[in-house]
Amino acid sequence: MASVDVGIGLLGYGTVGSSVNRMLVESADEIERATGHRLRVVRALVRDPKKDRPFPPGDGVLTDDFASLRDDPDVHVVAEVMGGVSPAGDYVRELLSAGKPVVSANKQLIARDGAELFAAASEAGVQLRFEASVCAAIPVVKVLRESLVVTNVHRVLGIVNGTTNFMLSAMERGGTYAEALAEAQRLGYAEADPTDDVSGADAAAKMAILATVAFGSRVRFEDVERRGIDELEPAHVAAASELGMVIRLIGIATLVGDAVDVRVQPALVDRAHPLAAVDGAFNAVMLQGDAIREITLEGPGAGGVETASAVVADLVSVVGTSGTGFLQNDACWRELDRLPPSDWLSPFYVHLEVSDRPGVLAHAASRLAAHEVSVAQLVQRLGDGAATLELVLHRASFGAVSAALREIAAFPEVLRPPFLLPVISERGL
Amino acid sequence: MASVDVGIGLLGYGTVGSSVNRMLVESADEIERATGHRLRVVRALVRDPKKDRPFPPGDGVLTDDFASLRDDPDVHVVAEVMGGVSPAGDYVRELLSAGKPVVSANKQLIARDGAELFAAASEAGVQLRFEASVCAAIPVVKVLRESLVVTNVHRVLGIVNGTTNFMLSAMERGGTYAEALAEAQRLGYAEADPTDDVSGADAAAKMAILATVAFGSRVRFEDVERRGIDELEPAHVAAASELGMVIRLIGIATLVGDAVDVRVQPALVDRAHPLAAVDGAFNAVMLQGDAIREITLEGPGAGGVETASAVVADLVSVVGTSGTGFLQNDACWRELDRLPPSDWLSPFYVHLEVSDRPGVLAHAASRLAAHEVSVAQLVQRLGDGAATLELVLHRASFGAVSAALREIAAFPEVLRPPFLLPVISERGL
Repeated sequence: MASVDVGIGLLGYGTVGSSVNRMLVESADEIERATGHRLRVVRALVRDPKKDRPFPPGDGVLTDDFASLRDDPDVHVVAEVMGGVSPAGDYVRELLSAGKPVVSANKQLIARDGAELFAAASEAGVQLRFEASVCAAIPVVKVLRESLVVTNVHRVLGIVNGTTNFMLSAMERGGTYAEALAEAQRLGYAEADPTDDVSGADAAAKMAILATVAFGSRVRFEDVERRGIDELEPAHVAAASELGMVIRLIGIATLVGDAVDVRVQPALVDRAHPLAAVDGAFNAVMLQGDAIREITLEGPGAGGVETASAVVADLVSVVGTSGTGFLQNDACWRELDRLPPSDWLSPFYVHLEVSDRPGVLAHAASRLAAHEVSVAQLVQRLGDGAATLELVLHRASFGAVSAALREIAAFPEVLRPPFLLPVISERGL
Repeated sequence: MASVDVGIGLLGYGTVGSSVNRMLVESADEIERATGHRLRVVRALVRDPKKDRPFPPGDGVLTDDFASLRDDPDVHVVAEVMGGVSPAGDYVRELLSAGKPVVSANKQLIARDGAELFAAASEAGVQLRFEASVCAAIPVVKVLRESLVVTNVHRVLGIVNGTTNFMLSAMERGGTYAEALAEAQRLGYAEADPTDDVSGADAAAKMAILATVAFGSRVRFEDVERRGIDELEPAHVAAASELGMVIRLIGIATLVGDAVDVRVQPALVDRAHPLAAVDGAFNAVMLQGDAIREITLEGPGAGGVETASAVVADLVSVVGTSGTGFLQNDACWRELDRLPPSDWLSPFYVHLEVSDRPGVLAHAASRLAAHEVSVAQLVQRLGDGAATLELVLHRASFGAVSAALREIAAFPEVLRPPFLLPVISERGL
């Protein structure tokens, strides 16, 4: 086995970057056994090279000059672990054009600018890998691209944001949205500004990437239907619980004929469904396809060391397959349409608040029936002259359900706009 | 992208072999996009080339002459999907020595003769891949070797036999071992001769392979401590249920310092543990390591199409990485000792049947305490002049627990030999 030094450049040297360096040093033998090469960080771009850092790289490795990294002939492969869309995107584009393979941990960059970046990689004949951009250490990109290459995956279902999963688990034990957020922030699961997580933007970027790889057609961040968890109230969580369900932020990517639907939104998940059991800050992705029925990958979807482990795995794959043509193309090979959102099929849950007058239920049921939406489960509770109706609807199109709800919302007896969530269940709804 | 024909040879053309051929034909475009090559079955070894077969290969492809496949210059890579240790092992060895890479779906062959076969592959400088030999479509070998290369996996825990998992799930709903077996046979989950599954031999071969890859040290089939499910009685299942647990056939591979312990045996699994939720004939493997905490892969662990999907993924990987040196070595690079079985640490469950006389419980407890084994949970039930004791013991060495049980078994009040199983729980036992 030839022992050749491969020089690694890092864009960024924070928690992930320093962990990558530490792993390359501490696991140099494992990596050489796998690839025949010894990998070493030879240059790392940071804002302030003088700052104290954990596991500092060797003398002269840190630099604040991007050009010195890009033009260094000893930098053979670069890992982008700085985050942010700009200037990271420009750097990655320049590196690819300069003929340097890149590994990126940056979900927003890949989900927004993937098309251009892959075009640049393809033109230069170098690899762009991105395992760490989705669910950290869970190797879902490699599994989709390499292990499931002939299985025609048609559905990807997942919990891909640990912060919201932790918060929703906390609300289930009792507590408001605000309390759950405060707890997540105290424990370090949520940022001071939690917008990216609670709005579903983080999950939407991951689902865009997963759908792109699974279906071979570019899905951009903007293509993902998105709804956050910030409108959820303890009453919704309690109502779900009475139905034997939990509320989770779910990513769903579906291939329907030649069209794709990708969405991130809160959903009711049956307690018997595997996704209901995904604990706290963990992530899980279920891949459904022809030959495999369903394969589920579960693990820590975030964290500096976990992300670094995926970055190193990608570096190993780039070094191990350079020059073969193996997976060195963009994963996209077709242009599928977006499914009109109204055509999307799912079982649904509806929460209605109505004044307690005879005939409201019959009236609502007739509107649903008129749109061929049938009711699987119904719970009615009475309050002071008002009632709440919890309905679980059999699989129907979003368009039909929405049309029925618009008509129901127009009843004078309906006190608040109906509240609608999809349902994830294996109970044959 | 260069379009080069790669000729595939098949050893065997049963359910798996014909599915491999069908996938190579139907997914030729996907495979070419991934590898730059078109793969085609050019020769398939069968006992009777004249027999009618599903998805028959082209004219002249079927042969009953191994030499004609081995010596065919158009056969570039071979998939062994015939099963059995002999003559499959001789064929694989000859093919490797003749310079042809091999992909094998044969767990017993890899677990028993892996050392020689990898030596032959290494000498000839060709690849031997074996994803399909463990848990069919679940890509655990690739994930361990490629994605988790720097994570120092130290524990592999799994349900790797669907037949026994189905049977134990059935016994939980009520029913004897014999009834569960009959049901599994009726539904096609168990063979007419179920020995391989119920004795744990099938699971032991898979755990030997997984432990070898995870720890980088050869673990042979014979190195696996093994206990089947055939001695389980409905009373054990009922007792487990009272403790909030289920009984499952569990594979456990542990790296302790420089020693390895690999075992397959029935265990009590806490209902809150993810493995308790693995449904019927599905498999699940949990990988615990430094950087990843815990990654779980779950899916169908058997089936012709599922196995074929893994065979094709391996063919794609072989074709995609030929000549790079990437992972073209044996996964073994060190020789670790076997942990003396008595040093293996676990929480345990003990079932004792005793005559109902004062002092028996105190006596048993003092014997456990003398060996520094402490009791976490105890249920005593009275019958006609007899009593049963169900004990859950905190984590202790198998040796200490066994020694205490030998002393307890010697009491005149103990009516039957104590029944001991390990416990899988995350409740901090």
